[in-house]
Amino acid sequence: MRATLIYGAGDVRVEQVPDPKLHEPTDAIVRVLRSCVCGSDLWPYGSMPDSAAGERIGHEFLGVVEEAGSEVSGLRTGDVVVAPFVWADNTCDFCSEGLHTSCRHGGMWGTGGTDGGQGEAVRVPHAQGTLVKMPVGEDAALLPSLLTLSDVFPTGHHSAVTAGVSPRTSVTVIGDGAVGLSAVLAAKRLGAERIILMGRHTDRTGLGREFGATDVVAERGEEGVERVRELTGGDGTHTVLECVGLDPALETALGAVRDGGVVSRVGAPQYEQVPMGFGTFFRNVTLTGGVAPARAYIDELLPDVLDGRIEPGRVFDRTVGLDQVPDGYRAMADREALKVLVRP
Amino acid sequence: MRATLIYGAGDVRVEQVPDPKLHEPTDAIVRVLRSCVCGSDLWPYGSMPDSAAGERIGHEFLGVVEEAGSEVSGLRTGDVVVAPFVWADNTCDFCSEGLHTSCRHGGMWGTGGTDGGQGEAVRVPHAQGTLVKMPVGEDAALLPSLLTLSDVFPTGHHSAVTAGVSPRTSVTVIGDGAVGLSAVLAAKRLGAERIILMGRHTDRTGLGREFGATDVVAERGEEGVERVRELTGGDGTHTVLECVGLDPALETALGAVRDGGVVSRVGAPQYEQVPMGFGTFFRNVTLTGGVAPARAYIDELLPDVLDGRIEPGRVFDRTVGLDQVPDGYRAMADREALKVLVRP
Repeated sequence: MRATLIYGAGDVRVEQVPDPKLHEPTDAIVRVLRSCVCGSDLWPYGSMPDSAAGERIGHEFLGVVEEAGSEVSGLRTGDVVVAPFVWADNTCDFCSEGLHTSCRHGGMWGTGGTDGGQGEAVRVPHAQGTLVKMPVGEDAALLPSLLTLSDVFPTGHHSAVTAGVSPRTSVTVIGDGAVGLSAVLAAKRLGAERIILMGRHTDRTGLGREFGATDVVAERGEEGVERVRELTGGDGTHTVLECVGLDPALETALGAVRDGGVVSRVGAPQYEQVPMGFGTFFRNVTLTGGVAPARAYIDELLPDVLDGRIEPGRVFDRTVGLDQVPDGYRAMADREALKVLVRP
Repeated sequence: MRATLIYGAGDVRVEQVPDPKLHEPTDAIVRVLRSCVCGSDLWPYGSMPDSAAGERIGHEFLGVVEEAGSEVSGLRTGDVVVAPFVWADNTCDFCSEGLHTSCRHGGMWGTGGTDGGQGEAVRVPHAQGTLVKMPVGEDAALLPSLLTLSDVFPTGHHSAVTAGVSPRTSVTVIGDGAVGLSAVLAAKRLGAERIILMGRHTDRTGLGREFGATDVVAERGEEGVERVRELTGGDGTHTVLECVGLDPALETALGAVRDGGVVSRVGAPQYEQVPMGFGTFFRNVTLTGGVAPARAYIDELLPDVLDGRIEPGRVFDRTVGLDQVPDGYRAMADREALKVLVRP
């Protein structure tokens, strides 16, 4: 089959690789219907050291079960399924607590010889715990929105949930990428009435307004913090959803949060240290969030997607075939595209 | 009257100062019955640059109302009262939310020309909002435990509350100082069944066991983290209460916490940066806590102190008169004393 590999910064290729086969009786083989490129894929795309062998890449996919191992129950050939961006057994104590990203038998697509999501098919370990059946056909118009349940929408949701967003909390969302816009949609869905979106790309913040943002702040850094404080009587917002992962975004988040408030980070950190000394201590600021246990949220989010109450798939603004995946990376890195959908 | 001033590192003096007088109709004058030295007083005692004028010091006190301004209701001359370690109006939005440390009219004892707690008397701004009447007489045996409601016990309680300690959570407490031991007592009071106390001073950890610690880990750093993990099946504890405020303690806390767990810090940070990069992000570790809004907790904690269910005053292991306060600082800095009670 064909699949995407990354060989270094800016070097993404689609190549022939071995067809996936069942290794364990708990595996399933999924033919990919839709995949996509994640903002976090852009980190290796920007800076990965050269690799002679290349590495499989892609961790968001939705597909059709082609074959299931003897110990997989509840899934049949032909089922349309979505895969969270880590696999998990869904039975260990961490999974039971809703922290599938720390599953005792979990793992990440494309690592340790496994398949990545940006390909024609994937061997899915712990398929019964990992895959979630979608009650739709292979050609459903909802596929893009359902695909977002793999990562980007639950990631926005995770930031809102861990921050404690509710009708009583004001919200700042930092970042107008697909995760930031998903966080806006998730905060709105949880009842937030005041959602300030910080971002500079008017096409993106426009979608943010449609998703529920009540205010847009284009300024960054200290100036951006001042604007958020002006909009909130000087205090900042109860919650700040940090959807970027870079130092300046985190500093802005810590500056824009109200005393006693919560910063939730879901942008994969490209920093080692967090500037939380005496100031944030005296202001009782909490830092929470982390990598989203998407599997824990799918059952809750799915009905709203199925009945069209939310359309998280609107973050996709370009669709490519598998051969065009390298150009999809380039388009996202150049900010030509917000998020690229892949139809293998 | 006499009061304590600090003139620089290691230079604490008791001197004559002007008697406090009412400035505002919302003030009260409190004659101090008991005060004490805080672990946080040891930071300036260790490193404060020389000051020609000196600074008033002390922020924990319990006393008798001598005079109340015309706008103070609910307090009368002769009432025994405890003062939280910041003053607050107890009516603003932050106070209503239980965050008195961010009160819009709040302030810290000894700053801006106000009195410190380590003296014979104190002018108390916003007395009605700040002071809490204790239903005891001036010579009650309970005074030391009631004095802890000013700071040290609510600080331990704040760490346990913000960490989410409950009967279902395992707890590590870092630090065997008075705050750490208070955190043990608070965690036990909230129902924690597994409390691991990290500390090396056997007299202190002995009191920690009496307060509810089930395990004591004397090792520090990586070795200490390993011990906590050994005690918890490799995982660490759901909550870690960081009661020191130094880099190594915070690093230990982040190492000893279970995936998805919470580190609550109540030791005043002597660091600027927190090492929370990708590792803690992937493990969904939360950092919370901060300066404790003691006033918010006193009503809840008081009954347990009054009926003797808890004895937080056991952290005092030395009592001095006002003239011996400088020696009290020295004894605490040299770790001869755990926490010094002052009887002016």
